[in-house]
Amino acid sequence: MTDLQDVYSERSYGGETIGFGSKPGIAVVDFQLGFTDPSYTLGGSPLVQRAVENSARLLGVARESGVPIATCYTGYNSKRDMPYWKITAVMEDLIEGEVATELDPRTYDPDYDVAMRKSGASMFFQTPAAAFFNKELVDTVYVVGCTTSGCVRASIVDCFQWGFRTLVPEDCVGDQAEGPHRDNLRDVERRYCDLTTADDAIDRIRAWNASQA
Amino acid sequence: MTDLQDVYSERSYGGETIGFGSKPGIAVVDFQLGFTDPSYTLGGSPLVQRAVENSARLLGVARESGVPIATCYTGYNSKRDMPYWKITAVMEDLIEGEVATELDPRTYDPDYDVAMRKSGASMFFQTPAAAFFNKELVDTVYVVGCTTSGCVRASIVDCFQWGFRTLVPEDCVGDQAEGPHRDNLRDVERRYCDLTTADDAIDRIRAWNASQA
Amino acid sequence: MTDLQDVYSERSYGGETIGFGSKPGIAVVDFQLGFTDPSYTLGGSPLVQRAVENSARLLGVARESGVPIATCYTGYNSKRDMPYWKITAVMEDLIEGEVATELDPRTYDPDYDVAMRKSGASMFFQTPAAAFFNKELVDTVYVVGCTTSGCVRASIVDCFQWGFRTLVPEDCVGDQAEGPHRDNLRDVERRYCDLTTADDAIDRIRAWNASQA
Amino acid sequence: MTDLQDVYSERSYGGETIGFGSKPGIAVVDFQLGFTDPSYTLGGSPLVQRAVENSARLLGVARESGVPIATCYTGYNSKRDMPYWKITAVMEDLIEGEVATELDPRTYDPDYDVAMRKSGASMFFQTPAAAFFNKELVDTVYVVGCTTSGCVRASIVDCFQWGFRTLVPEDCVGDQAEGPHRDNLRDVERRYCDLTTADDAIDRIRAWNASQA
Repeated sequence: MTDLQDVYSERSYGGETIGFGSKPGIAVVDFQLGFTDPSYTLGGSPLVQRAVENSARLLGVARESGVPIATCYTGYNSKRDMPYWKITAVMEDLIEGEVATELDPRTYDPDYDVAMRKSGASMFFQTPAAAFFNKELVDTVYVVGCTTSGCVRASIVDCFQWGFRTLVPEDCVGDQAEGPHRDNLRDVERRYCDLTTADDAIDRIRAWNASQA
Repeated sequence: MTDLQDVYSERSYGGETIGFGSKPGIAVVDFQLGFTDPSYTLGGSPLVQRAVENSARLLGVARESGVPIATCYTGYNSKRDMPYWKITAVMEDLIEGEVATELDPRTYDPDYDVAMRKSGASMFFQTPAAAFFNKELVDTVYVVGCTTSGCVRASIVDCFQWGFRTLVPEDCVGDQAEGPHRDNLRDVERRYCDLTTADDAIDRIRAWNASQA
Repeated sequence: MTDLQDVYSERSYGGETIGFGSKPGIAVVDFQLGFTDPSYTLGGSPLVQRAVENSARLLGVARESGVPIATCYTGYNSKRDMPYWKITAVMEDLIEGEVATELDPRTYDPDYDVAMRKSGASMFFQTPAAAFFNKELVDTVYVVGCTTSGCVRASIVDCFQWGFRTLVPEDCVGDQAEGPHRDNLRDVERRYCDLTTADDAIDRIRAWNASQA
Repeated sequence: MTDLQDVYSERSYGGETIGFGSKPGIAVVDFQLGFTDPSYTLGGSPLVQRAVENSARLLGVARESGVPIATCYTGYNSKRDMPYWKITAVMEDLIEGEVATELDPRTYDPDYDVAMRKSGASMFFQTPAAAFFNKELVDTVYVVGCTTSGCVRASIVDCFQWGFRTLVPEDCVGDQAEGPHRDNLRDVERRYCDLTTADDAIDRIRAWNASQA
C-alpha cells in the first residue's frame, strides 16, 4: 500500500486541500430501509448501521443550525425504467411504493429535509439536489449515506463536479465490507474531497451557526 | 479478497450480466498528452501506455466498422472555472490551449471522432456525449481511457446511469498503479458494467459490422 | 405575421424537416389536477381540456402498441426547494402530497406509464426522462401536455437538445390562451420540432406497431 | 393583447417578483460571428446589433467590478453530433474551427471571460455554465445574447431551473424580428425572470461592487 500511495503522491494527487467554505449543506444518500434494515438482502451491514447512527447525530445538529439537507432514495416504477444494474436485489426490491424505498426514520425528518427519488447511483444524477444546494447558496456539502463503494462514491464525484467543496465524514458513510469502503475513501480523498468525521462536522456546523448570529 | 467477494456475492452484487446490445459506440476518456506523454507530471504510466496501444487497435477497427466514437479531454479556461481538484498537476497543466490538453494522435482521428472538452471527472458530466450516443441510437458503450480510479470510473458510472449497456475492456483502461486499477474494476463490475478485453471488443464489433451488411 | 415569417424564412429557419424515425415514445407534461381540474387557479382552461382529451386517445393507442410513455408532474417539498417561480399558484398549490400534484387519471395509467416528479419547467430537467427514452432506444418523441408557452415549450427544447426527433401534436398541447399557444408553436416549429396532430400521431404509431410484427 | 394578459394575470402569472440577490454573474449567449456579423445568413439583425452594443457596455462594467462572466458559442464537429436542427444555416455554418463560431470581440474578453462551447439551444445544456456560477456563489444571473426566441429563451428557462435569480436586460437580447422578441419576453417575464435594462443592470452592478469594498 505504501508504494502505491507513493506513486500517486509523487504525481501530485492529494496535493491540495479543500476545506470548509461559507455555508454548509448535507447530502444524504440512500438511507432507505432496503439498505438500513437487516431484513433486506442489501440491508443492515455493520458499517451502514454505524453510518446511520453517526449521521443521525450530525443531522440533528444540522437541523438545529438551519443547514440545508437533501435526502434521497433509489426507486423505480418497474424494471423498465432502471439502468442496467448488476445487483439483483436492487432490481427486485427498490420499486416505488415498496417498504425498501422508505427513508429510514432515524435519519429523515419529513418536516425539514428535502427528499427526492433518484434513478442512478449518484444522488446528483438527474435529481433536484444540485439546484437545491445552488439556490440555498451552499458551497460546502457533507456527503453521508451508503454505500461507500457505490452510490456514495458516485455522489461524491458529482458533488465535486458541480463545484461544491465536498467533505466526507468517514464514520457517516458505510458499505457491505471494510475493504472497498477504505479503497474508495482513498481514491476520492486524493482527488475530490476532504475526509473528516461526524464529530468534526458537528463542531464545524456549530461554529458556523454561531458565526451567523 | 475472497471473503470480501463473498459478502458482496451473498448480497446479490454481480448477480446479473449486461451483454452487447444492438449498436456499439466508444467513449474515450482523457487520452490527452497530459496523461499519455511521460514528460508531464501525470503522464506516461505503463498501464496508461498499455491502454493507449490497445485502444488504438480497437478504435481502428471501430472506425472501419462505422462505430460512433466520442473522445474527450479535460481542460479549463483558468483555475476559476475548475472544480475543487486535489491534484495539483491537473490545476496547473490542464489549461485550454496548453499542449497537455491535446488529444493523443495515436487514439484520436479528427476526421472521424466527435471531440469534446470536459470540466469534471466524468466524460458525460455536462458534455454532449450522452446526447450524441442517444442520437446515434447506440445502446452499448465501450469505455476506454484513463485513469481507471478517477475519470474512467466516473465515466463508467455515468454511462450506466444514462441507460447504456456499459462494457469495459480491462486492457484499454489504465491508471498510475495496479492496485487502484484493480480495486475499481472490481467495484464497477459488481454494479454497473461487464469487463471484457480489446480482443473481445474487436471481435464483437467486427461481428456487428458484418451483421449490418 | 406574414412579414415576420418572411424574415425567419429568408434566414433559413424552418428549412429542414425532422420526421418519424425508428421507434416512438411519448412525453406527457404536467397533466396533473392542478392544471386539468377547473377548481384550481391554474386549472381547466379550454385548450388544456382539449389537449387532455386528444392525448387520452393518443395514449390509449400508444399503450396498445407498446410505445414507451413517460409522464411527469411538478411538485415540491416546500417553497425552499422551488426555483424562483413568478406564478403564485405554482408556489402555493404544487406541494408533494397535495391533490394538485396528482396525475389526471384520464391520461395516466399507473400500470404502464413511467411516472416522475419534476422540479423545473422542462420534463427533462433533472428527471429520469432522457435516460428512460435512451435506454428504450426511442428516437422519436411526441411531446403532449400543458402549458404550451411554459413547461411544454421547455420540454420540447430539451427533447430536441437530447437528440430526439421531436414531434408535437398541436391538439395535444394546451395553454391558458390561444395567443401564446400559437406564438410558441411558431417558434419551436422553426427550430426544434415538427408539428402534427393526434390523428396523425395515432396513424403513425399504428403503422409502426404493424411494422414490428 | 390586453385580454390575453388578463387571463394569465387572473391565474396568478407574474404574481411574484425575483429581484437582485447577493452576487451577480452574466451569461452571454451566442454572441459569435455567425449571429453578429451581417455576412452570415443568420447574422447582423438590427436587434442583435443593439444587443451587442448594450451588452458590451454592461460587460465592461461587470469586468471592472469582478462579476463572473460565462460566454458561449454554438459549434459542432460535424452534422453527426448535432441535434435535429430545422435551421439550415446552423447546420451548415456552425462547425468548430469556422469563423462563424468565433466569439465577437466586442463582447468577449479572453483574459477574463470563461468561454465554453454548447451543443444545444440553452447555454446551460450540458455545459460547465451552471457549475461555474454555482462555484462562484453567484445567485443572480443576467442573461444577454441572441436570439430571444431561440437560445436566449432556452437559456433563461435553464437559468431559472438551476435556482438562479434570472434577470434579463431587454436591450441586451436580440432577435431576427421584433414580434417573436416581444412574445418571448412576455412569456418568460410571467414565469421565470424579471425584465430590466442595460442601464439598470450597470447601476446595480456598480452598487454591488461598492458594497463589497
